[in-house]
Amino acid sequence: MKRILIANRGEIALRIIRALREYGYFSVLAYSEADKTSLPVKQADASICIGPASAKGSYLNIPAIISAVEVTGCDAVHPGYGFLAESPQFARVCKDAGITFIGPSPEAMEKVGDKSVARSVAMSAGVPVVPGSTGFVNSKEDLFRLAKEIGFPLILKAAAGGGGKGMRIVQSFKELEDSFETASNEAKTAFGNSNLYLEKYVSEPRHIEIQFARDKFGNCISLFERECSIQRKHQKLLEESPSCIISPKLRKDLSEAALAIANQVGYVGVGTAEFLVTPEEMFYFIEINARIQVEHPVTEMVTGIDLVELQLLIAEDRPIPFSQDDIKIMGHAIECRINAEDSRNNFRPSPGKVTQFIPPGGPGIRCDTHLYSGFDIVPYYDSLIAKVIAYAPTREKAINRMERALYEMVIDGISTTIDFHREVLKNAFFRKGDYYTNFVQRRMGIK
Amino acid sequence: MKRILIANRGEIALRIIRALREYGYFSVLAYSEADKTSLPVKQADASICIGPASAKGSYLNIPAIISAVEVTGCDAVHPGYGFLAESPQFARVCKDAGITFIGPSPEAMEKVGDKSVARSVAMSAGVPVVPGSTGFVNSKEDLFRLAKEIGFPLILKAAAGGGGKGMRIVQSFKELEDSFETASNEAKTAFGNSNLYLEKYVSEPRHIEIQFARDKFGNCISLFERECSIQRKHQKLLEESPSCIISPKLRKDLSEAALAIANQVGYVGVGTAEFLVTPEEMFYFIEINARIQVEHPVTEMVTGIDLVELQLLIAEDRPIPFSQDDIKIMGHAIECRINAEDSRNNFRPSPGKVTQFIPPGGPGIRCDTHLYSGFDIVPYYDSLIAKVIAYAPTREKAINRMERALYEMVIDGISTTIDFHREVLKNAFFRKGDYYTNFVQRRMGIK
Repeated sequence: MKRILIANRGEIALRIIRALREYGYFSVLAYSEADKTSLPVKQADASICIGPASAKGSYLNIPAIISAVEVTGCDAVHPGYGFLAESPQFARVCKDAGITFIGPSPEAMEKVGDKSVARSVAMSAGVPVVPGSTGFVNSKEDLFRLAKEIGFPLILKAAAGGGGKGMRIVQSFKELEDSFETASNEAKTAFGNSNLYLEKYVSEPRHIEIQFARDKFGNCISLFERECSIQRKHQKLLEESPSCIISPKLRKDLSEAALAIANQVGYVGVGTAEFLVTPEEMFYFIEINARIQVEHPVTEMVTGIDLVELQLLIAEDRPIPFSQDDIKIMGHAIECRINAEDSRNNFRPSPGKVTQFIPPGGPGIRCDTHLYSGFDIVPYYDSLIAKVIAYAPTREKAINRMERALYEMVIDGISTTIDFHREVLKNAFFRKGDYYTNFVQRRMGIK
Repeated sequence: MKRILIANRGEIALRIIRALREYGYFSVLAYSEADKTSLPVKQADASICIGPASAKGSYLNIPAIISAVEVTGCDAVHPGYGFLAESPQFARVCKDAGITFIGPSPEAMEKVGDKSVARSVAMSAGVPVVPGSTGFVNSKEDLFRLAKEIGFPLILKAAAGGGGKGMRIVQSFKELEDSFETASNEAKTAFGNSNLYLEKYVSEPRHIEIQFARDKFGNCISLFERECSIQRKHQKLLEESPSCIISPKLRKDLSEAALAIANQVGYVGVGTAEFLVTPEEMFYFIEINARIQVEHPVTEMVTGIDLVELQLLIAEDRPIPFSQDDIKIMGHAIECRINAEDSRNNFRPSPGKVTQFIPPGGPGIRCDTHLYSGFDIVPYYDSLIAKVIAYAPTREKAINRMERALYEMVIDGISTTIDFHREVLKNAFFRKGDYYTNFVQRRMGIK
């Protein structure tokens, strides 16, 4: 690979340009008309417009991107995250055109991309998934047998519907007995179908993910966990590594589970396995993200490993140049995603001109952003405008450092989520590390 | 200590404000009229004007600073570097007024501040200084005896003068014999005095310094070396840690030398011992810098230790919270000092308005700067406007990362030394690590 086309925008495009420059590749940025004054366009070695503002016409436009690769003489494509990053179809078109797609093979992507396929892959790799009935439960006897098998708490759900109808959380056989008929009747009334099914109820899970990498020689490493439980409407807002609730044993078990799945599907590249983890250290596989993640910098900070460099290495069919034993967690890193959203107004998008931008700096602060003073944030894409990463020897110091960084960060002209993050950082439950995926709702009262 | 007055400006004032915020102190910035729109003024918890633009009237004005401490209810002063940082008089006035001076005692500062005193302190601590005759040499016999003692190469200098008259570099007894009389005559002609003295000639030295810290309990640690040989007219321009020519043995010897001097003078605080190191791994003590250094970030990056935090701890009479064995060098860090100077025009100062400023960011990059878009650089103070620090697992990667960072850094409206640094970084001798204090002159042809 010599010339690499980046089919993305914003901070991740800049992140990739930086890696390409450092490791001696020529970067070509494919951009939409709406992004023509963006920092990635200014900083790439070359750039090419691939279409109008709408993602469909540009960043999701496979023929336009393939033409751009050919016109600019590139031999590889980096898809970043989002857009076409997890499209097996795009990966296959690249492959067929003799273009290196920097990511896993279309086949591996298909296997991990479909959630039900991924669930059976995980099961056959011996990795726990959220336990439940396969299909609906016919009889009370089956229900009790299954309940015994899975263990409480459980959730009864209507096979036919949603929205809480026919849904009961049960903590014991007594409650299961009491709930079965009423739930069944409720389901019948609501959906004309009384069938129920049973699932393990994960009441206060943590969202923990394992960063892994696997090369074409089958070398497979875990770069350990990221804690991503600070979410709103399933959107991650703040991530950290390491997680303060993960024991060395659990870290090892989660890593082994992630690598088992990666091996099972013959994954080649850098990827992430997402899990729900209970306070009792039970874990359940959710899904694989077959790409670089927004939150990858926290892993880079604590392991010292450049994940984009690793993607490039693996895409060139080179072996991962270190072993599992070489990878150590040093210190603590936190990332805050700064979005152009009004966090006091239901997180409404807030595009517009940034009249003054002063990023945070100094010791232990990394800022990944495509902002500059005078930059116009367009309304067409996601609202992530900056990632601030604080690194320090301990979690407490990393939190204090992040508070300092957000205090000094200036983004004038638009609303941002900086104040939201300052609230998270001073929250006593957050500081104690006592939080779950419901933190934003339960501890901050935000819907 | 609760409220700390910062008697400084620019990037180091911001560096100190950041540390104070992270570690829970209240910061008060003392600023001159010329600095009233500066970033440190905006970011300190409070600020107070101490006088006009001229340093004499403000940053060097001891009564004004002491008044500012009293008016703002501070209990300590951080002097930064430059200005009053190494003034025993200022330290003494603070002490007498019951204000904690964040730095060594006036007594220790006096001992290391006077170069001839420092030289004898070093000698009595068993640390080598540039060897030479004490006073002039009377006879050819004395000269030969001394030459034998010190070893070649040597430099003969006229006791009475300078400017190269009567000066001879000699490599052997033969050359010494040949040169003695001509040099002596030349000195006589030039200065009316034929007396000569002899000194070790350090032809291609490296400038290596050891960062150390010592607490009031006598605990003393070395944070190892910084390589500072890239200089112009004795001004450091680029620094790195570790040095690529320092063996573990030499690192240990230099560290022990630095700590011996610190112990000898009862130094309490964070400081730096500067040495000349020859290609043959001989080293000679030059001086102590009794303060935080401009180039301290490279040490912070490779050791993970916050040096300003360490200053605060020691100033509060707390013991250094780790031991020598805890300190390891991990990876490689390089700092480029970006000055508002025209490096293509004899490094002429280039003050003025910065119309657009985009600092470098992303993985492994730290930027310490008080610049922002629209900031007006005033002509009254030194020209340092930003420090870019690149950190990576290896020296080669750190160099590539720094090249990437400088490529993306935008400072419009003034001239800077960015291009100068890009020339250094691509120089083959620099990349090989084959350089001495004469690098800028010899390898770049810059006076």
